[in-house]
Amino acid sequence: MKTTVQMIIDALIEPVGRLEQTVDTLKFGDPSTEVTGIVTSFMPTWHVIEQALERKANLVIAHEGLFFSHHDDEAEGRANMIHQAKKRCIEESKIAIFRFHDYWHRYKPDGITEGLIRELAWEPYVSVHQPSASLLNIPSLPLKDIAEHVKQRLGIPYVRIIGDLDMICSRIGMLAGYRGSGSLAIPLFEREHADLVIYGEGQEWETPEYVREAVRQGNPRALMVLGHAESEEPGMKALAIRLRTKFPDIPVHYIKEDPLFQLF
Amino acid sequence: MKTTVQMIIDALIEPVGRLEQTVDTLKFGDPSTEVTGIVTSFMPTWHVIEQALERKANLVIAHEGLFFSHHDDEAEGRANMIHQAKKRCIEESKIAIFRFHDYWHRYKPDGITEGLIRELAWEPYVSVHQPSASLLNIPSLPLKDIAEHVKQRLGIPYVRIIGDLDMICSRIGMLAGYRGSGSLAIPLFEREHADLVIYGEGQEWETPEYVREAVRQGNPRALMVLGHAESEEPGMKALAIRLRTKFPDIPVHYIKEDPLFQLF
Repeated sequence: MKTTVQMIIDALIEPVGRLEQTVDTLKFGDPSTEVTGIVTSFMPTWHVIEQALERKANLVIAHEGLFFSHHDDEAEGRANMIHQAKKRCIEESKIAIFRFHDYWHRYKPDGITEGLIRELAWEPYVSVHQPSASLLNIPSLPLKDIAEHVKQRLGIPYVRIIGDLDMICSRIGMLAGYRGSGSLAIPLFEREHADLVIYGEGQEWETPEYVREAVRQGNPRALMVLGHAESEEPGMKALAIRLRTKFPDIPVHYIKEDPLFQLF
Repeated sequence: MKTTVQMIIDALIEPVGRLEQTVDTLKFGDPSTEVTGIVTSFMPTWHVIEQALERKANLVIAHEGLFFSHHDDEAEGRANMIHQAKKRCIEESKIAIFRFHDYWHRYKPDGITEGLIRELAWEPYVSVHQPSASLLNIPSLPLKDIAEHVKQRLGIPYVRIIGDLDMICSRIGMLAGYRGSGSLAIPLFEREHADLVIYGEGQEWETPEYVREAVRQGNPRALMVLGHAESEEPGMKALAIRLRTKFPDIPVHYIKEDPLFQLF
């Protein structure tokens, strides 16, 4: 039986139900096209799209937007040289690109968070999944050992930390992506009694300053910042695994980008 | 003649005129108190306030908020243990704390940006000051040499970079603080022909992804991310110098905090 782009989209949306307001739309391509292969990725860079084409995949499912903005109308409003050149290449390639952001975050549990926890091999330690955060009770470890584990499991060269590297941590609040704001992260310490919060990205003057002040007040607390992509990529890897099970006849590849920044 | 807290505030506000909507208010203390000494700082941590008290300074002028949020009502809404403990210490100390954020950014040129440019010894190279950004034409240098210069002048251990370290850069777009968004940074490349944008903090999926895509399209561009505090501290140091000239009888100290994050 022929599987179309639309059938894949319908299957992805089904566990949540159709959202009225969402950034998750088919950005390029024809929904009636038969799918020859799927690539999932965190960021649909042209490099990722090229790799999809090389693998004869004609559907890319990406978490973030194509044109350097969360909202398409904002991206269009500031359409620039780099945007236009990328758009032309995509149109010429005839590839289909679907954004899978809001729906994946609304799965129960959140597909991105669950993917991150799985990649860290921390599934047995989940205490509760909240809509934006998950709480885990891991076997007690010094912060520096947790950081080593995270770096090794995620394959990332460094994390940014606030707190005492020798602090023993057990209760972890996990926030994937841009969820490091004070309003999301501080209650994990105050109400959920997390020792350590791990997030992808957040405002530097909110949670980090709270943790610094807490430590100096003698309340041992710790923060680990992974980077936005670093925290959400495993969720798109997990999506590839799920799609392989659901559509066993279609080749599904997860493509990881290079680290965004270099330290100097 | 007695100089009061209110007289200092009036002098700070005067070049801009009173703003209707602003976060820049006297957070603690009595405006009629005679000022015995002033401390300027980027972030009014309790550590900075303690150092002010040790120096017999009774007015702290800080760029960011006290309680881990840009807006006071948001901070109050999520008032937490760490917030309450800090607030009690401040009230007991009777110190005055004035926030100087919006006004300083509205000076012409922006006091924070001007302070950063001065600290980098790049004042001779300013081409134009825009309201949010400044453009500079420095003598051509490889990106890695510019990064070395920035690290050494600002005393910071690392910067985060996108681009080729050997790329020759001359035209620089400078965005202090949280001004790294695509809407502010991308036009500096596209319209102002910057080779390199330097910013404090910004969304990882906007400008960084634009620069990565541009480089891969063969358009040499570069981005250097300093950190929020790292980019705005020199502006509060510059403020101390200005206040010393304006109020020669009052001791004025600039206090720099430790780096917020440690790399691991």
